[in-house]
Amino acid sequence: MSSILGRIFRVTTFGESHGRAVGAVVEGCPAGIHLVPADIQAQLDRRRPGQSEATSPRSEADRVQILSGVEGDVTLGTPIALLVWNEDRRPSEYEGIRDIPRPSHADYTYRVKYGVQARSGGGRASGRETVGRVAAGAIAEKILRERYGVEVVAWVSRVGSVTAPQPDRCRITREQVDATEIRCPDREAAAAMLELVREVKRAGDSIGGIVSCVCRGVPAGWGEPVFGKLEALLAQAMLSIPAARGFDIGSGFEAASMRGSEHNDPFVRKGERLGTATNFSGGIQGGISNGEEIYFRVAFKPPASISLPQKTADYEGRERELKLKGRHDPCIVPRAVPVVEAMAALVLADAAMLQETRRRGSAP
Amino acid sequence: MSSILGRIFRVTTFGESHGRAVGAVVEGCPAGIHLVPADIQAQLDRRRPGQSEATSPRSEADRVQILSGVEGDVTLGTPIALLVWNEDRRPSEYEGIRDIPRPSHADYTYRVKYGVQARSGGGRASGRETVGRVAAGAIAEKILRERYGVEVVAWVSRVGSVTAPQPDRCRITREQVDATEIRCPDREAAAAMLELVREVKRAGDSIGGIVSCVCRGVPAGWGEPVFGKLEALLAQAMLSIPAARGFDIGSGFEAASMRGSEHNDPFVRKGERLGTATNFSGGIQGGISNGEEIYFRVAFKPPASISLPQKTADYEGRERELKLKGRHDPCIVPRAVPVVEAMAALVLADAAMLQETRRRGSAP
Amino acid sequence: MSSILGRIFRVTTFGESHGRAVGAVVEGCPAGIHLVPADIQAQLDRRRPGQSEATSPRSEADRVQILSGVEGDVTLGTPIALLVWNEDRRPSEYEGIRDIPRPSHADYTYRVKYGVQARSGGGRASGRETVGRVAAGAIAEKILRERYGVEVVAWVSRVGSVTAPQPDRCRITREQVDATEIRCPDREAAAAMLELVREVKRAGDSIGGIVSCVCRGVPAGWGEPVFGKLEALLAQAMLSIPAARGFDIGSGFEAASMRGSEHNDPFVRKGERLGTATNFSGGIQGGISNGEEIYFRVAFKPPASISLPQKTADYEGRERELKLKGRHDPCIVPRAVPVVEAMAALVLADAAMLQETRRRGSAP
Amino acid sequence: MSSILGRIFRVTTFGESHGRAVGAVVEGCPAGIHLVPADIQAQLDRRRPGQSEATSPRSEADRVQILSGVEGDVTLGTPIALLVWNEDRRPSEYEGIRDIPRPSHADYTYRVKYGVQARSGGGRASGRETVGRVAAGAIAEKILRERYGVEVVAWVSRVGSVTAPQPDRCRITREQVDATEIRCPDREAAAAMLELVREVKRAGDSIGGIVSCVCRGVPAGWGEPVFGKLEALLAQAMLSIPAARGFDIGSGFEAASMRGSEHNDPFVRKGERLGTATNFSGGIQGGISNGEEIYFRVAFKPPASISLPQKTADYEGRERELKLKGRHDPCIVPRAVPVVEAMAALVLADAAMLQETRRRGSAP
Repeated sequence: MSSILGRIFRVTTFGESHGRAVGAVVEGCPAGIHLVPADIQAQLDRRRPGQSEATSPRSEADRVQILSGVEGDVTLGTPIALLVWNEDRRPSEYEGIRDIPRPSHADYTYRVKYGVQARSGGGRASGRETVGRVAAGAIAEKILRERYGVEVVAWVSRVGSVTAPQPDRCRITREQVDATEIRCPDREAAAAMLELVREVKRAGDSIGGIVSCVCRGVPAGWGEPVFGKLEALLAQAMLSIPAARGFDIGSGFEAASMRGSEHNDPFVRKGERLGTATNFSGGIQGGISNGEEIYFRVAFKPPASISLPQKTADYEGRERELKLKGRHDPCIVPRAVPVVEAMAALVLADAAMLQETRRRGSAP
Repeated sequence: MSSILGRIFRVTTFGESHGRAVGAVVEGCPAGIHLVPADIQAQLDRRRPGQSEATSPRSEADRVQILSGVEGDVTLGTPIALLVWNEDRRPSEYEGIRDIPRPSHADYTYRVKYGVQARSGGGRASGRETVGRVAAGAIAEKILRERYGVEVVAWVSRVGSVTAPQPDRCRITREQVDATEIRCPDREAAAAMLELVREVKRAGDSIGGIVSCVCRGVPAGWGEPVFGKLEALLAQAMLSIPAARGFDIGSGFEAASMRGSEHNDPFVRKGERLGTATNFSGGIQGGISNGEEIYFRVAFKPPASISLPQKTADYEGRERELKLKGRHDPCIVPRAVPVVEAMAALVLADAAMLQETRRRGSAP
Repeated sequence: MSSILGRIFRVTTFGESHGRAVGAVVEGCPAGIHLVPADIQAQLDRRRPGQSEATSPRSEADRVQILSGVEGDVTLGTPIALLVWNEDRRPSEYEGIRDIPRPSHADYTYRVKYGVQARSGGGRASGRETVGRVAAGAIAEKILRERYGVEVVAWVSRVGSVTAPQPDRCRITREQVDATEIRCPDREAAAAMLELVREVKRAGDSIGGIVSCVCRGVPAGWGEPVFGKLEALLAQAMLSIPAARGFDIGSGFEAASMRGSEHNDPFVRKGERLGTATNFSGGIQGGISNGEEIYFRVAFKPPASISLPQKTADYEGRERELKLKGRHDPCIVPRAVPVVEAMAALVLADAAMLQETRRRGSAP
Repeated sequence: MSSILGRIFRVTTFGESHGRAVGAVVEGCPAGIHLVPADIQAQLDRRRPGQSEATSPRSEADRVQILSGVEGDVTLGTPIALLVWNEDRRPSEYEGIRDIPRPSHADYTYRVKYGVQARSGGGRASGRETVGRVAAGAIAEKILRERYGVEVVAWVSRVGSVTAPQPDRCRITREQVDATEIRCPDREAAAAMLELVREVKRAGDSIGGIVSCVCRGVPAGWGEPVFGKLEALLAQAMLSIPAARGFDIGSGFEAASMRGSEHNDPFVRKGERLGTATNFSGGIQGGISNGEEIYFRVAFKPPASISLPQKTADYEGRERELKLKGRHDPCIVPRAVPVVEAMAALVLADAAMLQETRRRGSAP
């Protein structure tokens, strides 16, 4: 685990926020996929800071380079190394805080775990680490789309106390999501969210939110029983995103207050296949996809970096007041949208390939 | 993944609900641990059906046998095979339902995935599969308790619309939890929950709920960055439990509506160590434990097996009415309590051993 | 690693030589395979001691039980637990040797590694551990034979200084191998080998040997580049067998003295496929099977348990003379034959399934 | 497996011979290790072509860059990305051979496996892939040396029919090895080897050889039983090196003709520890190191690229004559020396860290 994810389609990410580069190596990508940097760049651009008032003004082009595994714009089946240089490094911004662990950051836990600590910024715990995930996820998405017809769309469904009405999960598109700065497809809710973010930003504070996601077109049969249940791997993937605090699928936490007679999804014929009339199961039964939409939510805490002064303690336990400089996101969820999509794609691509090993008949 | 969990302390479980036996092999258990069947039996007994009105009347002694890895009541460091025979098998109860997939069960998805299907009951998707988890988890718990002073306690915090007030996470004990049939430490809430379960049972229906869990005494430094974050592995472990639909940690979904200035946990000196004044982080920062209590919630859907007739379709897509026989749990959360504890213990024991590899100095 | 082998078709073995049982759990076996205990028993019977003068008189029926993963004689796709009870345990035979580590056994290294030690016999380091491998390997063989047409045949090619002439690798059968007690298909060499073993046994000594193996019918394309090369996984599998000391494939150590112009295998048309005129590569190029026979050798040291008195030291370093009781194999290679076949089958079955993940087109 | 090796200290390599770059990501490296590019460059320089008459004139500086995981010359405990640009790419040299698979190369098997093929050179099957291994291995070596006092030294012990006398395994140094171009510490044998290589080169041919290796200072207790035996992991690591055909450890293939009474290593007191008087076991018993020197041999075939014309077939099965251009190594073993050392170091570093998880007492 740690920095490696997946069993067949496997991703290793690397890179500190203020080091020389971040990136990923994708192992187990099938050969014969057409792949150019632009396939990856689109999602990296959506992840970039500086795109809206809600996000950090840190400005980097985040141009991805493909160093291996591709020749003549076609994948070779060998490891694909993806590299993004860090351009806008300002470690000096962090100089004043070397002796005070920032509250609800990972400064303290990294120091205890490793006995050393990156000089500046969050190092490996920074949101910049997700560049490698998004780059690798873009490849996973391409395979899912081209080989299996699977689409993944995430959006902001809540910021603070502003909750958007549930969109039509069968139809929502990335274009609709990107139509608002806050990446909420409901324009009215989006406006209220953005207003809230502006207010929070002015106050030097930050705010939490929820990202929802739907995966359409997943055929029945993906996912493994017991510890490799599809929802279990999605949960791991989502809770591994910096600042994620919760995950639920289908009916989710609402299921706790429901009765079986209302929650059970009756089977019905849907054209050639068997489907379900309702979808409280969220497209997964017994850990295995059933052909219906997979949908889930990921809760994010408010970013820990705020401009407001904070009363805390230094590493020696002495009371101190901390005033953070640097460029911060008042609300992370708009930028978390492509990260959630990437993580979902990584889990699904791996599940797809694993299911190929269950196929009958002879090979290769 | 699939039926293997963990990197160092690794568990493989096996067994169908109506096959000959269920069990687990624990690999990577340290040598020199005193271990007798009674250490494991206690948690298996808590998991057993037939203990209260809330649970299935299926009756099995579930006596665990230790087949290997232990000699003279001491672990050898080699794989520990744990076996529980299935005694109360009644596959005939399932005969009428061979051509109709039970709604919100895994009958349909297993058939699509594997092309074959266990003749009776849920096979590997049944709750009986958790016997192996609980047996293995009891060993993990013993190591955590004896080597690291870690305690894990779970309880029922919600059934249907009945929510219990939050207990004192620093003090709650298994004795308090087991003092009520429903395993809710608040007696008033427990009574209301039990009343609700009785009513649901009389109606031939089922009801969902939430299990909460606290892990006390975890030292700072457990958990790995990025994909191996402690909360990510806990999320995978919890969502892998049959019927689990959601997981959140610390502030969880509540974090979505909070501001950074209120959510950040300021550091304070706590005796010899650095602690935090509040604990919205749930004891984990950047994926790594910080020495505070780790606490989380797991949402469970209502059991899919209900006595009420259900309108659904058979495998051919023809409309059918299904009437289930068999012995069902109207509410699974009381029996899920030791399963949640087991899964938490498995994750923490593995994290503990992985952290040993980060130690400085020379070996062995 | 440790007691788990494979990526998709994964085997976990368990059991000490003088504990209650030995066995294995096979995870990732495809569903829909016809499987009865007799499929497994045949190879276990070949592995059993007491079959010839060359092997230990320890006598156990070694009846395998299938505890899970199979219903109505068909695999379900879920973990298959295999159990063999230990019947002929005589730990008392080992009582005199508790304070002296047996030379070239694992008594000393296990004690240092784990700080504890099985009271008797080799514990997990005993040859009895291979029961689980052979049982699991029999399932792997069945899949290879029925789905891919692959056959695996091993034989004794050397005992001490007696070397058998190379048989026709395209045609050799298990019947030919089993026609002699020593499992050497060349009757003349077999007679000389058996004579040597008798002499060694009379002298209270033991003798080494070599097992050769051929895998026929492996299609081109199995095996992964770099660390997962087919020959690398075969080497790991073979060197993991107790008493194995060496492995070579194709031209093997002979390759060191050859020139490229003689060693290169020219391509030729073979019916519909491309084949090679010679096969110094041993059926693998760049870690990937090329469609020709895969063949390799495994060298085994003489068994460490001998009746002759041995001058050695106890755990305190004091000089001692050791005289072993117990029932020993003067030569292990005849019994190693089915173990080598099992390990080859486990590696190939896993490679076959992994290659399924490389297939083009859509799933499932 | 594939391009990822190890359980705790894990290496992912990437890069084609004629792509943009080759490299590796090292995950699980402990924090707090002093690390600068020069630590890695030394072994890369030994691996480079163009250093002697025996090797290819391809000329690249192979300068390693450290992109992540290190700050202020100290490891952070996070993934270390290592990059080496490919400078001397001449894909045009390979243009004539697009329709003929080179004999005993991986052109054919890659094409069958993946359905596509790198346009030029061996792609991922090229010896250039070992750059990532050597870079990662240099880090492993540093940990082994500084934390555990372990030294790894390999040398050329055979070229064609020229065999060097066995050196003193307790004393041989890299300086002695590098004193001759051919990397054989025996000057007389080295001269004969070089003479043979010259002759072979003039003839447009190539020649095989053997690399021997010793690992000194490994404490007792490293390695895991059963499938994770230290010799099994070494065998996998060595057979994964391009052109490797065989591996044996300690007495190796010689063990086949030995008797137990001569092969068993009697225990003797060695200062404070228990040692063995002889070391036919090669420092490993039951898969676990015993504190004596670990030594083994790796056989390499003659390089498949030769200038002599070869009669073979094209992909259509038509007879063709192939005449290779390009820059080839007449004998690979001198350059394989640092690769063997790197692979040994990777296996041992991982074993060392895994053994830390077996330690008693409390953590972290």
